[in-house]
Amino acid sequence: MKKNLFKIFQIFVLFCISLSANDGPCQEILKLEKTALDRWQNGDVYGFIELSAENISYFDPSLEIRLDGKRVFKAYLGPLFKKFKIYRYEILNPKIYCNGSLGVLCFNLHNYNKDGAVTSKWNSTEVYQKIDGKWKIIHSHWSKTKPKTENKQ
Amino acid sequence: MKKNLFKIFQIFVLFCISLSANDGPCQEILKLEKTALDRWQNGDVYGFIELSAENISYFDPSLEIRLDGKRVFKAYLGPLFKKFKIYRYEILNPKIYCNGSLGVLCFNLHNYNKDGAVTSKWNSTEVYQKIDGKWKIIHSHWSKTKPKTENKQ
Repeated sequence: MKKNLFKIFQIFVLFCISLSANDGPCQEILKLEKTALDRWQNGDVYGFIELSAENISYFDPSLEIRLDGKRVFKAYLGPLFKKFKIYRYEILNPKIYCNGSLGVLCFNLHNYNKDGAVTSKWNSTEVYQKIDGKWKIIHSHWSKTKPKTENKQ
Repeated sequence: MKKNLFKIFQIFVLFCISLSANDGPCQEILKLEKTALDRWQNGDVYGFIELSAENISYFDPSLEIRLDGKRVFKAYLGPLFKKFKIYRYEILNPKIYCNGSLGVLCFNLHNYNKDGAVTSKWNSTEVYQKIDGKWKIIHSHWSKTKPKTENKQ
């Protein structure tokens, strides 16, 4: 009897851990990403700047080399504030890997104009870390989906 | 006295945890990546296939959308076996974030021909997870550094 109760307790604990380690943070991370993208859509680059950690590292197709650190990241994105507008965006196939204080979100992103035409397609990987109780982006990798210019290996 | 001993014990435990949670896995992940790249250099795509987890997700510039699952990943890379050769490669600025059973490695990669000219430049993000005691790649994002074709936001 005691053994069974212990087994039930074990299952309950594992269930609670799986809830807290996967579903909760995963949904929270996706929500944070969407909030930053909503601001980005209106040219507000500060959604991503505020969400970034001090030690963020960042790739995008305009950079010759990885960009490191929030100060540099802010100096890079800041001048774009309100310089663009995206009519509509769509997150495709979001997938999240979570492990306590680290979370990795990856998805495809399509941007559209007001006529419903796709203006750009992106591959995105966002790595989040829980720092002082808040999820922050520590690594971000944005690339164009199937850019036309292709080199060999 | 007991309090001090407990404090020393606490510091020792934290020191051991930091050793095992950061430096060790970080170096191990970088070593695994280099081993797979050494095989890749000679057209052996199975280094990365063997290193991948069953639930791997994968971005590269040839794909219209993210590729999911080891079976699909193998079917995609397999036909490239021994179809290419890279004379020399160089990993630039490797950075690793580790947290117990998750590790994120990001770096720039330059490939060279025998004359020492750069043939391609890459941005790479590799997400590793410890599964059954072994580090496996669960997410991989490869993109060309500053590809010539650029679209707007």
